[in-house]
Amino acid sequence: MPAPRSNNRRSLSASLVSLTLDRADPGSLQDQLYDQLRELILSGRLAVGARLPSTRALARELACSRNTTVNAYDRLFAEGYLESQAGSGTYVSGVLPEDLLRTSNQDSSMNPESTPRPDRPMGLSSRGESFVSLRQGGPPDLAAFTLGVPEIGSFPFELWARLLTRTWRRPTSELWRPGDAAGHGPLREAIAQYVRAARAVECDWRQVIITSGAQLGLSLAAQCLLDPGDKVWVENPGYAGLHGPLLAAGLVPVPVPVDDQGLSLEDGLARAPDAKMAVVTPSHHYPLGTVMSLPRRLALLDWARDRSAWILEDDYDSEYRYAGRPLSALQGLDRAGRVIYIGSFSKVLFPALRLGYVVAPLEISEFLVQARAALEDHPSTVAQPALAAFFAEGHFAAHIRRMRRLYASRQACLVRAAEAHLSDLLVLKPDEAGLHLLARLSAPLALRMDDQTASAKARRAGIVAPALSRFYSGATGGQGLLLGYAGVSETEIPEKVRILAEALG
Amino acid sequence: MPAPRSNNRRSLSASLVSLTLDRADPGSLQDQLYDQLRELILSGRLAVGARLPSTRALARELACSRNTTVNAYDRLFAEGYLESQAGSGTYVSGVLPEDLLRTSNQDSSMNPESTPRPDRPMGLSSRGESFVSLRQGGPPDLAAFTLGVPEIGSFPFELWARLLTRTWRRPTSELWRPGDAAGHGPLREAIAQYVRAARAVECDWRQVIITSGAQLGLSLAAQCLLDPGDKVWVENPGYAGLHGPLLAAGLVPVPVPVDDQGLSLEDGLARAPDAKMAVVTPSHHYPLGTVMSLPRRLALLDWARDRSAWILEDDYDSEYRYAGRPLSALQGLDRAGRVIYIGSFSKVLFPALRLGYVVAPLEISEFLVQARAALEDHPSTVAQPALAAFFAEGHFAAHIRRMRRLYASRQACLVRAAEAHLSDLLVLKPDEAGLHLLARLSAPLALRMDDQTASAKARRAGIVAPALSRFYSGATGGQGLLLGYAGVSETEIPEKVRILAEALG
Repeated sequence: MPAPRSNNRRSLSASLVSLTLDRADPGSLQDQLYDQLRELILSGRLAVGARLPSTRALARELACSRNTTVNAYDRLFAEGYLESQAGSGTYVSGVLPEDLLRTSNQDSSMNPESTPRPDRPMGLSSRGESFVSLRQGGPPDLAAFTLGVPEIGSFPFELWARLLTRTWRRPTSELWRPGDAAGHGPLREAIAQYVRAARAVECDWRQVIITSGAQLGLSLAAQCLLDPGDKVWVENPGYAGLHGPLLAAGLVPVPVPVDDQGLSLEDGLARAPDAKMAVVTPSHHYPLGTVMSLPRRLALLDWARDRSAWILEDDYDSEYRYAGRPLSALQGLDRAGRVIYIGSFSKVLFPALRLGYVVAPLEISEFLVQARAALEDHPSTVAQPALAAFFAEGHFAAHIRRMRRLYASRQACLVRAAEAHLSDLLVLKPDEAGLHLLARLSAPLALRMDDQTASAKARRAGIVAPALSRFYSGATGGQGLLLGYAGVSETEIPEKVRILAEALG
Repeated sequence: MPAPRSNNRRSLSASLVSLTLDRADPGSLQDQLYDQLRELILSGRLAVGARLPSTRALARELACSRNTTVNAYDRLFAEGYLESQAGSGTYVSGVLPEDLLRTSNQDSSMNPESTPRPDRPMGLSSRGESFVSLRQGGPPDLAAFTLGVPEIGSFPFELWARLLTRTWRRPTSELWRPGDAAGHGPLREAIAQYVRAARAVECDWRQVIITSGAQLGLSLAAQCLLDPGDKVWVENPGYAGLHGPLLAAGLVPVPVPVDDQGLSLEDGLARAPDAKMAVVTPSHHYPLGTVMSLPRRLALLDWARDRSAWILEDDYDSEYRYAGRPLSALQGLDRAGRVIYIGSFSKVLFPALRLGYVVAPLEISEFLVQARAALEDHPSTVAQPALAAFFAEGHFAAHIRRMRRLYASRQACLVRAAEAHLSDLLVLKPDEAGLHLLARLSAPLALRMDDQTASAKARRAGIVAPALSRFYSGATGGQGLLLGYAGVSETEIPEKVRILAEALG
């Protein structure tokens, strides 16, 4: 039934004046609205960061049902054109899906000849555009259930402040002088001891290089051990943060499927038999949680030895295992010196610390240090001595033990709350390790929406629940939501789960 | 007169047993010794880090005059095969001159196809080998007259420790959470205010990105604005620290001579008319101290505008100008948005801090931030809030004023001491700015030795005085010694100058 269209457009922003819904059009009203909004965004008439009217206001303006506007917005959310901040409205996203799609074909985006762009904005290079499109938006939200946010209320900041003061009140010249590119000696020794004891990593302190986190570790290995154009197996699904360092080093990431035993060596060999490196999370796959089986580990090590290839082992959350036997690092099985092991303190202490480490085979560690010196001089010594003291005085081990109990309890709380409120919608399995759970979409929910739509609905309700399919490259991704529970208290968890259930209900 | 050769070789290391001096050989004994030692080093029979006998012991062993061994050692020092630590002996250098020579041809070393190296040690890539050879040895000595070491005794560490404690005792979530890739907001604002007021840089805080120093600033610009294979004008002589980030980004550095007005645009256009970036130190050339003239500045800006090229302005020691009118930054003259300005706090506060900044044109600053996020997430917030408070409470300005008086006085002291003790050997000119002076070799000294020999003699006497010719790429470099005075007290300066005079006398 055609309805009279409203003539009152004063409350809409000028760029929305052109919106018209044609009841005679064979396309549904929500498809028309979706198409027109998308076109306004892509043409730039709705600029990045522009605020959109609420679904209610827009429905009133267009004299359509609110369902129409909600569904059109949801689709634009799900596809990344819109973003929202809890309670503060709906905005055009900073990085649009078209930018993202453009770089999913890494081969051509890395080769300037193959993609002439005379219309490149702002004088960015071809590589620069690829960088820009790697990243979606700014720093993450702290809302439940953001991934990778540890519990902070329990971190002993008073102690941390005291350790900093002790270091800096009357520093020796060793502290203020230009430092060692490998990092502060006592911290290297403390980390070597820790990874030997806790992770069965075989190393001494000379093999430990202090970094600003996993990305710098990957950069050093990539710059030192590979040449531009070399191929690198990366896990699919996997950690998107790998792509910046790989792009900077001119490498070609080759996504390799992960099965129930970890990265599929067979698929890797089929897709890129000449790969020079594999980047893996064998202890606890990110984000699926799979543990790489022993046969797969040995096969991967054999591959690296036989092909003179390298394995980069990202042991990103190995500190948190709640059940089962702690698994040794892949590095400890390596007899050929082909594994570079990286870890970070962002999830163990606090994210803004930005300290991590590389453990490299002794024969190459001094070269990685020299590359570090050439790339970025040496790491700041402001926090390193305090962190070394935090280890030496037993605070590190004590903090991990406390957090392990806390996170195990929070995971159990999340599983219980999900059973109570989400059982028709999401299927959660407990995990023996980590800081998040994977919630698969239930069959009835999957009939109604895909995971990106579900994630968008959650975000609009103030809940962060990243869609699993976003961690895949290529069209066929698994469907699910990832729920980071480490930073959410047990009083909050049931409430947030209820909100999530309502948003998806 | 042929002398009987000693049979007692027990005190020589096994690898030196093969040394033999043949009096019948037409080559001088010192040439024979030089050739044989060099061959032992290059063949690896004398390993990196191996300790050599003293000149006295070796002369005794070989039954030659001590002059022979001293001269052979001096030559090996001058050419970089040997290095010494004050009072602790003579060692085979960590990076040998052959490695350095290999990478002076950047074109071929950056292209893996053109330099097949089946015998590559340790599995380093071709690029990895280039990295390794960029760097000579570890962190710098603190002995007089090391370059770039500021006065530390006067740094208010008690205050610094208090500011750190204040930040970290009870941090807000803004501090511990994953941060903004551009850096801590209040620090960005403080730096924007400072560079506007002190350097006439035109910017607001959104254009300021916090880095770990000049190298990361260059990396971000290189990765975002240039593509692999692009050419970059670099000053000749110039700062060797540029080469790591350029190599990592796959760029081709093109050395361009510096004349008395700064980088020669004419030479740049002749050598690489299609260069996409120029990296310059216009306020105070490193290491010559030249100030780029206004006509040259305007011509360079015109070049960048007309060719859509970029200028990276490294304002590395602009805080310290003792006489004459402070010069505005090149950035302040730029009307086309082609200048990226970088600065660092290593020489203003203390080297191990590792904080610096980029000021980018507004249109590209957000892209550089996104590249930073993709490459290395965000800078640590451990020190940033304390540094922001250091600015906000006026300590930064006060510290610079104190240091400016101190360094001016130290420079005058160095000039006086050189007049008293070095006037036959070195010609020092006062400089209106900076933290070091350039001492040209006097004509009589230049007849006796080149600057690398002079530098090696100084090092053996415990004095660090880098040779100017090492800052040049290509064969014809200027001759001189660089004397960093900022970190040397006025009681030490005359004594160290006397030791230097003796070493060269």
